[in-house]
Amino acid sequence: MKIQLDKESRIPLYIQIINQIKAMIFSGALPPEYLLPPERKLAEELEVNRSTILNAYRELKAEGLVHSRIGKGTMVVPYESKTEVSIRPPEHRLTWQYLLSDEACRFNDIRIIEMLRVNGDQPIISFATGMADPALYPVDEFYPDITYDIDKKKRALGHTLVEGCVELRKTIMKMQKEKGIDSLLEELLILSGSQQGLNLVARCLLNAGDTVIVQEPTYIGALQIFSNAGVKIISVPVEEKGMRLDIMETLIKKHKPKLIYVIPTFQNPTGTTMDLKSRIKLLNIAYSNQVPIIEDDAYGELRYEGNTFPSLKALDQYDHVLYLNTFSKTLFPGIRIGWMCGPKEIIHQLTVKKQLEDLHTSTFSQVFLTEFLKSGRFQVHIDESCRYYREKRDTMLKKLENSRIKGLRWVRPSGGLYIWCRLPLNISADTLLLKSKEKGVIFVPGSVFFLNNKGNEYIRLNFTYPTVKEIEKGMMILLNVIEEENKKNQEKIINKDSAICNPIY
Amino acid sequence: MKIQLDKESRIPLYIQIINQIKAMIFSGALPPEYLLPPERKLAEELEVNRSTILNAYRELKAEGLVHSRIGKGTMVVPYESKTEVSIRPPEHRLTWQYLLSDEACRFNDIRIIEMLRVNGDQPIISFATGMADPALYPVDEFYPDITYDIDKKKRALGHTLVEGCVELRKTIMKMQKEKGIDSLLEELLILSGSQQGLNLVARCLLNAGDTVIVQEPTYIGALQIFSNAGVKIISVPVEEKGMRLDIMETLIKKHKPKLIYVIPTFQNPTGTTMDLKSRIKLLNIAYSNQVPIIEDDAYGELRYEGNTFPSLKALDQYDHVLYLNTFSKTLFPGIRIGWMCGPKEIIHQLTVKKQLEDLHTSTFSQVFLTEFLKSGRFQVHIDESCRYYREKRDTMLKKLENSRIKGLRWVRPSGGLYIWCRLPLNISADTLLLKSKEKGVIFVPGSVFFLNNKGNEYIRLNFTYPTVKEIEKGMMILLNVIEEENKKNQEKIINKDSAICNPIY
Repeated sequence: MKIQLDKESRIPLYIQIINQIKAMIFSGALPPEYLLPPERKLAEELEVNRSTILNAYRELKAEGLVHSRIGKGTMVVPYESKTEVSIRPPEHRLTWQYLLSDEACRFNDIRIIEMLRVNGDQPIISFATGMADPALYPVDEFYPDITYDIDKKKRALGHTLVEGCVELRKTIMKMQKEKGIDSLLEELLILSGSQQGLNLVARCLLNAGDTVIVQEPTYIGALQIFSNAGVKIISVPVEEKGMRLDIMETLIKKHKPKLIYVIPTFQNPTGTTMDLKSRIKLLNIAYSNQVPIIEDDAYGELRYEGNTFPSLKALDQYDHVLYLNTFSKTLFPGIRIGWMCGPKEIIHQLTVKKQLEDLHTSTFSQVFLTEFLKSGRFQVHIDESCRYYREKRDTMLKKLENSRIKGLRWVRPSGGLYIWCRLPLNISADTLLLKSKEKGVIFVPGSVFFLNNKGNEYIRLNFTYPTVKEIEKGMMILLNVIEEENKKNQEKIINKDSAICNPIY
Repeated sequence: MKIQLDKESRIPLYIQIINQIKAMIFSGALPPEYLLPPERKLAEELEVNRSTILNAYRELKAEGLVHSRIGKGTMVVPYESKTEVSIRPPEHRLTWQYLLSDEACRFNDIRIIEMLRVNGDQPIISFATGMADPALYPVDEFYPDITYDIDKKKRALGHTLVEGCVELRKTIMKMQKEKGIDSLLEELLILSGSQQGLNLVARCLLNAGDTVIVQEPTYIGALQIFSNAGVKIISVPVEEKGMRLDIMETLIKKHKPKLIYVIPTFQNPTGTTMDLKSRIKLLNIAYSNQVPIIEDDAYGELRYEGNTFPSLKALDQYDHVLYLNTFSKTLFPGIRIGWMCGPKEIIHQLTVKKQLEDLHTSTFSQVFLTEFLKSGRFQVHIDESCRYYREKRDTMLKKLENSRIKGLRWVRPSGGLYIWCRLPLNISADTLLLKSKEKGVIFVPGSVFFLNNKGNEYIRLNFTYPTVKEIEKGMMILLNVIEEENKKNQEKIINKDSAICNPIY
């Protein structure tokens, strides 16, 4: 109980005390049966006469707000005495679990929630994140530009449009144009992270029972969103040049999917990239079957070697592609800003849904980001990141190459954040994770990116978040654990040719 | 086409030019049929010999990436020539509208999207917002604390937990405790604005076809979310002390609702507040019928006179209430931060759903807000806001009182953002808005807060966003327009006693 007295006020001290205790009782800050401090103690604390407190308590009693119990002291009376009605406790406690919607019952996957929790733990070497290197965050460049501009500072705290700040959208339009995507302002929607975009797409296009086509393996967040939507997920295997388009054509004819979700460049988790020919073929399949494509281009900027291919969106002249991107991988994830680019009519629908979901994306994040992008430092940052990430990737690849573990295979990515590995025969990624975690190294087991618990022979290693030193140390530890497991297995089983294993692209 | 040459590089200039043009062709930045600049022009621009450009173009032609057309110049060749496959345009353009989900077809309300668009327009006196006064934004206090702390600056850019930053949740727990809400860390969820919370509740608890109970009139965003969920919305009329609880009891028995949504304090749009007795009665009804309550307390802090009542959450000892609050009304809306407090099991479900929707709330917004709250300036800001808002409210009330327009009635709010008015007989709020907008004053017509186009005899006036001067001028204009309309009506119709009108609380 905190009371502040104004001894210079013309309001008598005991009245001030009464008013403040009364307010606390009415607001619930002093709940029923709360024991007020003894008069003497409160008098000392407030540096007033004991009689002042006595007067105040007497008045409160007269108003029926407190009463004295012998041996206990002065207590706040229960609400009923103040209102003539009393709280009648429910016969049964409410069982919230029985109230859940179909959607809530359908989906209860807490793996990403747990992953974000682990990230805080120390000391562990993590190949498990999907994050940029925090040491590269352009912190100083991101903050100061705005600090002296009172108008911008204020604008950053107010509402903006559901579609996103106009200036940010214009800046992104310009950036996209350099990548061959020519769009109008109304074709852009700023998102609270690209996760939101994918979810909005599901809300706007999918009914429970519909079908979607995805690459397999693919981004866990996409699998989650589609599972939550209650749709049938049909998967097309990933291969070196993107995905098995021959299979896709057949599957489309059979399942008549509502959409195709694809990460054409530096795919998560495999790191593979579709070449120009595959991109054109995919578009043609989509065109002839009238199926829209959701293109996720989160990693496209992070290329460490070789030619850039145009995005599907850049190739598409017929409004068939909805393009999704984010600043989480290129810059940092904490501002939660992504965007979507597509035909006006569907962007409008997504905007209507976005307004329901979060009104609009944080103006605060948007204004700072706009300033940063306009400073021209974004490309500098991308170039610098690519330089560092190339070194990190090469460090990890070298460790893999030097290990010479029988049956261990991996994909050499020309960009992105991940190296995708297939473990030697009979090693399970889940078991491996338990053992390597004990030794201080974590990664993501492959099954996370597959449907129906497949893929436990794969692991995904991130090389952008850890330092070069951590990569060296962590890979040594991890490879040793794999080696040990391998030896145990080879003692037990007849060695089989790795050719019968699942593919590694 | 932007080419940057490094004249000190050991790579010959014409090779540098080739590489860069190639990259732009592959990335789609130079689309098929893009016309390259004439050799002479490019040579001048890059300050190189014309022969350098000639060599580069010749090489690109040899690789089949560009070709020359007489009279036209040098063009990027279509993709087909480069890949042996060509884009086959779709026979029909994709009709996105036919792909929409049931949910998207069900809900297409763009009124809030439009409202946010109007806010930017000038010069107009707006009584239409639901916003705090930007002149009161504690801008300096919100920014500088963090600016010199590199660790915090970096942390603000990274991921955080889906549930929200621990420090922010702890700070809010402390704030809540002072209001009689005693909660655990796991009972709190940080939201990207309270709109998100309401939507998550709908996703987690409601199936299409379920029933909910709301006050009528009520917050348009809630009506939208429930409409989008495809549920039956049953309304209980608002009255001076909150809502008609006698009617509610009957409706609950009849409709077996999944939840009750209520704004007990300074309700939007009516400004009414439930007294303690009504609060206890409402809880008892919820208890005996096993219906959870969603309590929206967005305005509770903004009290200008009278006693504070405990929130339903503070009164509820049986985990029956889900409590929703936001910093949008007390502080500013641009950071998009709200929170929810409720039983652990339902907070867990909401967290699972939130991860799908936007992964987590902007760390950037959360870290700045935490610093601000911890500085102790929040309460100072609330006190200051209340002082100013009281003056603004009184200015608006005085104008209403002095107008003496026959049949005009209003509710005197003891807090919050709005004055709710019933127009004289036969004046429609929609028509009034058209006329007053012409003269530079806008407000929200009452029908927005009702179901089924009722309520066109009411208007909602916001007094916190405009300045005192704007209130004086704007009210003069608005009241004149009402007066004029009233006169026109009285000439036409027999004057009826306003007693037959709908209630004004």
